[in-house]
Amino acid sequence: MWWSENEWAALTDPLTCGMCADAHLDENEHSTLVASTATTHVRIARNQAHRGYCIVILREHVTDVGELSPEQLSAFWADAQRAGRAIQAVFDPRKIDYLVMGHRMPHLHCHVFPQHSSDDPKRNVDISDRSDDHSPLALREDARTLRHSWDEQSSSAG
Amino acid sequence: MWWSENEWAALTDPLTCGMCADAHLDENEHSTLVASTATTHVRIARNQAHRGYCIVILREHVTDVGELSPEQLSAFWADAQRAGRAIQAVFDPRKIDYLVMGHRMPHLHCHVFPQHSSDDPKRNVDISDRSDDHSPLALREDARTLRHSWDEQSSSAG
Repeated sequence: MWWSENEWAALTDPLTCGMCADAHLDENEHSTLVASTATTHVRIARNQAHRGYCIVILREHVTDVGELSPEQLSAFWADAQRAGRAIQAVFDPRKIDYLVMGHRMPHLHCHVFPQHSSDDPKRNVDISDRSDDHSPLALREDARTLRHSWDEQSSSAG
Repeated sequence: MWWSENEWAALTDPLTCGMCADAHLDENEHSTLVASTATTHVRIARNQAHRGYCIVILREHVTDVGELSPEQLSAFWADAQRAGRAIQAVFDPRKIDYLVMGHRMPHLHCHVFPQHSSDDPKRNVDISDRSDDHSPLALREDARTLRHSWDEQSSSAG
């Protein structure tokens, strides 16, 4: 069964939203900041079982893609695309998935989720695939490398 | 292990691509056409374990989101958003996921994947969740209902 009305109201409340609280921080429990734009924060996940895995988080507290204005929608996906290009340049995955789910954390975000040579394309995609979490130092290094690549990507390039 | 270079080359070859062959057909093995735009074909899946489940397929044969021009990217997601709004209006899900994967069928497409009251938000999302396939008649009826809703959604509404 889905969350009850009360549970869902709590999860979608901006006053208690975990992403509103920590999406902009240099480091939080789950990830490290790579870049911020007018529309999103781009963060690299501490869980690097899929090397390069990042999360693109809308700044505004919105749950439903359907609520976005055309300008917000375009800007959100331009940032997600730019993150994907930066990941491609640095980590050279075979494929990148783009996943908007957020069942536990409905604040709108996209998992930019690389698939590498060692990954099985026939397995169901699972963002909870686990490796040992990156050390804070290693994650900061990855974030720095990715930030350079992000800066080199033009979000408006064809 | 990921597909070999040869396997991936075959999967991504437009000459043998299954979606290039059947994305535009009124009915194919997997789905029924709801609507077409200059950029995409929107289809309702025969597997309606998640009622309202649709697939938004880029007309052009592209594998990587990173390859899209800004105009294509915006138009693709505007169509996916519009499909989501149409699904919301007809099937009233609790949440809609937007999933770009395509490990077996890399031609760019987005699964617009509703979650209903009966779905467990803590289970990993799995597009292969199964129910009895919809009968061709039932699917045509759903497609017709959804098409009316699609026509009522403005893809440019804020």
